Amino acid sequence: MKTYLECIPCFMNQALRAGRMATNDDSVIKRILDETGDMVKHIPMDKTPAETGRIVYNIVKKRTGVSDPYRAIKKKHIEDAKAILPELEKIVELSDDKLLTAIRIAIAGNVIDLGIDRPFDLVKDVKRVLDQDFGIFDYRQFRKHLEQTDEILYLGDNSGESVFDTVLIKALGKPVIYAVRHQPIINDVTMEDAIASGLDQVAELTDSGSKAPGTILEECTPEFRELFYNAGMIISKGQGNYEGLSNCKRDVFFLLKAKCVVISRHLNVETGNIVLKHHQGIKG
Amino acid sequence: MKTYLECIPCFMNQALRAGRMATNDDSVIKRILDETGDMVKHIPMDKTPAETGRIVYNIVKKRTGVSDPYRAIKKKHIEDAKAILPELEKIVELSDDKLLTAIRIAIAGNVIDLGIDRPFDLVKDVKRVLDQDFGIFDYRQFRKHLEQTDEILYLGDNSGESVFDTVLIKALGKPVIYAVRHQPIINDVTMEDAIASGLDQVAELTDSGSKAPGTILEECTPEFRELFYNAGMIISKGQGNYEGLSNCKRDVFFLLKAKCVVISRHLNVETGNIVLKHHQGIKG
Repeated sequence: MKTYLECIPCFMNQALRAGRMATNDDSVIKRILDETGDMVKHIPMDKTPAETGRIVYNIVKKRTGVSDPYRAIKKKHIEDAKAILPELEKIVELSDDKLLTAIRIAIAGNVIDLGIDRPFDLVKDVKRVLDQDFGIFDYRQFRKHLEQTDEILYLGDNSGESVFDTVLIKALGKPVIYAVRHQPIINDVTMEDAIASGLDQVAELTDSGSKAPGTILEECTPEFRELFYNAGMIISKGQGNYEGLSNCKRDVFFLLKAKCVVISRHLNVETGNIVLKHHQGIKG
Repeated sequence: MKTYLECIPCFMNQALRAGRMATNDDSVIKRILDETGDMVKHIPMDKTPAETGRIVYNIVKKRTGVSDPYRAIKKKHIEDAKAILPELEKIVELSDDKLLTAIRIAIAGNVIDLGIDRPFDLVKDVKRVLDQDFGIFDYRQFRKHLEQTDEILYLGDNSGESVFDTVLIKALGKPVIYAVRHQPIINDVTMEDAIASGLDQVAELTDSGSKAPGTILEECTPEFRELFYNAGMIISKGQGNYEGLSNCKRDVFFLLKAKCVVISRHLNVETGNIVLKHHQGIKG
């Protein structure tokens, strides 16, 4: 996916929010915004928004010295999610279609996204997603691919959401490799966050090498790319991963909530819709 | 009121929206955003957001050659508002407190604001405002000042909203001078828009000289400033006028809906609140 004009004010918003997380000094934040403003003319519009997102967070890091401005809030979101985990597991247990309910829960976790300028209410939003209709619902294909695979590559997105992923991973009933970002970027899940989320108990963890808030294959490690092109089935969470993989030459199942106009237009759904999309690539 | 860091992403959004109104050529809009980005480091943070808003719209004008990108939509909003005008007048007629209902209607019209990144539904939003509690409600003072004055200076804000202003002007029952912007800026009401709104039938019209989306006294004409400092009572509509006059040395009654976090924080109300605020200045 390329970058759209609508992404540009959003970069400025991301710079402001991350700057506010990293420092209380308004003059430093102003300098972050100045530099982000100067960056606009250099944005590679043919690349993904996630790649420019990385540049924005590098500006914040350079100006404040803080490499993980969302550290404390990530920890809180993981704790908040863990607190409702037993209830989520009970919902799956009591449901007629356990796999589908677990998919809904994994998508519900995707409301925890600090790259987006929308507030969320974890418990309320999760409940809403459990009853919401899908904008795209390729569930039949998902089941079919799941039946036929021995192993799943699962691309993580946000911290907190990562706890919800454990519910789906258990419901998949097959070995899962869970991929995390190489380093902190927005509230995306890193190795440390994945372990704090309990993902090491249900999956093998791997570092994709990505420093962007998404999966940009050219920037991932060669080991990860090999894993990607050879995995039996790929499940990709969230907008950032979708940005990098929407045109990739592999079958991918995208699970996400469409939270901004650019993504929802690209997917041809309404903003706010939940999506289970089967992207048909060519197995490399 | 000064400019806050939160205004900066908003300027970028305004540039994008105005650019989209003025042209379909994405490369031209990208250049508008590039220039707006370059402008960030030069923003006078001690001046009002309205003053920087003017710079943004000048960039759009320079790059597209379109001096009034909102022309068609302003016309439509005036027509939409006129279509419901008889109903609004009936609501006033049937109400116990005609003045207060007319004030509510004038504030309701303030939902028509294209400088703000929020969609609105005219009929639904107007109905909501008619029942909404005020965040600030200096109605007693408003009545007292109204009783004691022979003449009112009324500062217009947006086109379409301007039609709603006729309802309040009639209810005031005193001579009114209605001030408009000197030239098109966002969807703010100009002389042409005021006449199309029927304001010439209920008030004397005057051009404030302001080229910004607000009343910046130093940039208004000397004639307007004299009018301002000598008017018996001043009613100011909307956020842009508030930005310029929030610290002025005159009593002003601000009527607005707080539509962004910066304004609502400055007024110490919730975003979405409606406001009738008596600003106490020193009569010059």
